[in-house]
Amino acid sequence: MNDTICALATPQGGAISVVRISGVKAIEYTSKIFTPRKGLPLAERKSHTAVFGDVCVTPGELLDEVLVTVMRAPYTYTGEDVVEISCHASPYITQQILLTLFNLGARQAEPGEFTMRAFLNGKMDLSRAEAVADLIASSSKASHRLAMNQLKGDFSNELAALRNKLLKLTTLMELELDFSEEDVTFADRSELMQLCDEIDGVMTHLTDSFAVGNAVKNGVPVAIVGETNAGKSTLLNALLREERAIVSDICGTTRDTIEGLMTIGGTSFRFIDTAGLRETSDIVEQMGIERTIEQLKKSSIALWLVDPTDNTANIEELARRILPLCEEKKIAILVNKSDIIESETIAKVIDQCAKMAAKYTDRAEWSSNDVWAISARQGTNIARLEEFLVRSASLPAISQGDVVVTNVRHYEALTRALNEIKEVKHGLELCLSGDLVSEHLRAAIHNLSEIVGEVTNDEVLGNIFANFCIGK
Amino acid sequence: MNDTICALATPQGGAISVVRISGVKAIEYTSKIFTPRKGLPLAERKSHTAVFGDVCVTPGELLDEVLVTVMRAPYTYTGEDVVEISCHASPYITQQILLTLFNLGARQAEPGEFTMRAFLNGKMDLSRAEAVADLIASSSKASHRLAMNQLKGDFSNELAALRNKLLKLTTLMELELDFSEEDVTFADRSELMQLCDEIDGVMTHLTDSFAVGNAVKNGVPVAIVGETNAGKSTLLNALLREERAIVSDICGTTRDTIEGLMTIGGTSFRFIDTAGLRETSDIVEQMGIERTIEQLKKSSIALWLVDPTDNTANIEELARRILPLCEEKKIAILVNKSDIIESETIAKVIDQCAKMAAKYTDRAEWSSNDVWAISARQGTNIARLEEFLVRSASLPAISQGDVVVTNVRHYEALTRALNEIKEVKHGLELCLSGDLVSEHLRAAIHNLSEIVGEVTNDEVLGNIFANFCIGK
Repeated sequence: MNDTICALATPQGGAISVVRISGVKAIEYTSKIFTPRKGLPLAERKSHTAVFGDVCVTPGELLDEVLVTVMRAPYTYTGEDVVEISCHASPYITQQILLTLFNLGARQAEPGEFTMRAFLNGKMDLSRAEAVADLIASSSKASHRLAMNQLKGDFSNELAALRNKLLKLTTLMELELDFSEEDVTFADRSELMQLCDEIDGVMTHLTDSFAVGNAVKNGVPVAIVGETNAGKSTLLNALLREERAIVSDICGTTRDTIEGLMTIGGTSFRFIDTAGLRETSDIVEQMGIERTIEQLKKSSIALWLVDPTDNTANIEELARRILPLCEEKKIAILVNKSDIIESETIAKVIDQCAKMAAKYTDRAEWSSNDVWAISARQGTNIARLEEFLVRSASLPAISQGDVVVTNVRHYEALTRALNEIKEVKHGLELCLSGDLVSEHLRAAIHNLSEIVGEVTNDEVLGNIFANFCIGK
Repeated sequence: MNDTICALATPQGGAISVVRISGVKAIEYTSKIFTPRKGLPLAERKSHTAVFGDVCVTPGELLDEVLVTVMRAPYTYTGEDVVEISCHASPYITQQILLTLFNLGARQAEPGEFTMRAFLNGKMDLSRAEAVADLIASSSKASHRLAMNQLKGDFSNELAALRNKLLKLTTLMELELDFSEEDVTFADRSELMQLCDEIDGVMTHLTDSFAVGNAVKNGVPVAIVGETNAGKSTLLNALLREERAIVSDICGTTRDTIEGLMTIGGTSFRFIDTAGLRETSDIVEQMGIERTIEQLKKSSIALWLVDPTDNTANIEELARRILPLCEEKKIAILVNKSDIIESETIAKVIDQCAKMAAKYTDRAEWSSNDVWAISARQGTNIARLEEFLVRSASLPAISQGDVVVTNVRHYEALTRALNEIKEVKHGLELCLSGDLVSEHLRAAIHNLSEIVGEVTNDEVLGNIFANFCIGK
């Protein structure tokens, strides 16, 4: 924390790049490579001023004309002196600036290190610091709102309220311990139990929200599966409205799993195009097929794309392989190529697929409405597919102020805390000694404190900020 | 020019994104979505101050916490009021900010429109404006130096000097016309001729510099060719030191031409990995092979990668196909897989390749030193290859202040101007009338004026700035 860190805060490319420097020597180091075009030297500038001038890393040779913003501690993101150099987005220029700052004594910032410093300097608690990474990754209204609610401290406030209740419980517990000689246990215990139920309810609500939070944050996973050459890549392109996957007439073109994120009707979907499910001796394709099955298992919606030019036996074989893997998922069966295959054939294949679905899935709600013809190439019935997706995802709307758990670490800590609360309840029911029950209470409080970072250690911090991008 | 433009100045990704707004209403529009966390409203802030605060695009709902920098005309990049919003790099946040600014009346900036406004507002001439794009694209010391020399105005100054000489010539020419009755033509003409030779010399020097300028700016093109499965992608990776190309054991994995830019010993090289040169019926690969031959023709250095496990007839066949295409290029023949093939076999193949090279190329300077064994996988003899590349590129060093033409538009305008000067000289030699000669002189001046943008039109400007990135 005594050293000065720097990193590129923008990706390569674009018009401008921003080099960010934070630490006690941020202004000193910058002054050594930067000369204002006019006016006072950088060190004498007020906080929050932008200064135009020249960067030279070799004496007498102009590297770039830049805009430098000086911000002085403590009113900065990290709480330390911060300088941002806004330069032309040339890989050579940014590299030279960073190398020179390193030579002067600055250190390359680790991923998330600026935010970690903000946390360590008390600018925000840990769950809010984590929300920064989520905010940056947010690509839909819902994921943005979740991250912003967390960044504003809604989740932290909820946790603080929980923690206060737990502390109250602890106080009551200790009161009981003090008076245990006087045999007033039972009256107290019912009050304790009531408080426990309340805490249990809030925590259960929070842990349950993780399923939604995770889908909102990372997108509802949708696997596109089907035989080789059924047009899966074309369908992915039609959904993503861009030429992301390579589409060709050669069987087995899609060897790697290709993913695409797309927001439809306010919901993020993560589409996964998979390798074709044919028997093959090709090593690369064989690996692809194993991945396909893995991806299918992990998805919550499956789209089986059927090639109507395929023969009946093949379609049955595919149904036998695909459908049993989809028991717990929403599935649509899409008979492709309606633009080139005559409608009679299409109708027959739809009929066969509906029968297969009835045979290989035994859910009551199977609906033949979930088999229909599309043309991925011409975009026919893609709107219907989009409606199906939005309906199947059926994520609840997120309002401002809603507290939803989106972070695996928080979910796990909450789950641990909840288990401790269950133990507390169990102890109360069995009239165990106050000491034993208190131990679980302390563990629950500890778990909640871990979320906001009141108790933490270097390893935990390291893991959290390792997932950040460099420069934040 | 009366409207207000805005655009994202950084690519998607990274920690922060910068939205740039320029025009008379830049501050007004920003004020409508941005509230400083404390202190004066944005409109009352001094120029070149950075203000921390909240962006709301929906009333009462926080979109992001941002840093806004206000810069007031005329001391800005464009010469207009400029605002930069530095926000979290979320695609959702940047999209919402831009959409809201559009709704308020701002317009999406065209590529390079900020720089075009800088040019139109007289902040820089056209050749300097073009250098901005080159500076952003610069990835090596040499390409950076060329762009910076141009941005600083070295090229503009050289052109101004040329133009002055041409104007002097015109004056002398008109003097001659005035006195033409008095028959003093011949004395004047020799003076004119001398001045013409001088101008011709400077212009020829400039146009000749384009070959170097182009290689420095875009990289020396190096084609990696050879049979399928020889390890071309592995070699590209070894040179680029990253896993850019997909490497697998299956023949014909590299279907698209893959390029990689890499600076070795201060010289930029543009490596082009090509599809394997085998006979094939695969449509995708067939297209790849045609591209390979195209790429080979355009490169100035060729690396033929030989698979020593291939049979003698095949190697001869490849030599027959590849080597005649390399007549005008530097070529190295690299026998790969020295890590797994025994040295005796390698030595035989090297010997065969040297003979092939002597047979299918008839240049005197062919050296058997240019055939050697490597292991692309283990990096063996890659250093030797790098030395070969640097030696073969042999670009002259560029010093500060060197004027080198790097821009096709400048090169073409200079070439046209030079042709006009040749006409002038021709006219002087043939003692044509001053009127006819003057016409060519005016055309030459016109061509030079086009470069710095003293004469220009919308179409020319449109073409120039269309090659810029958005946000610059």
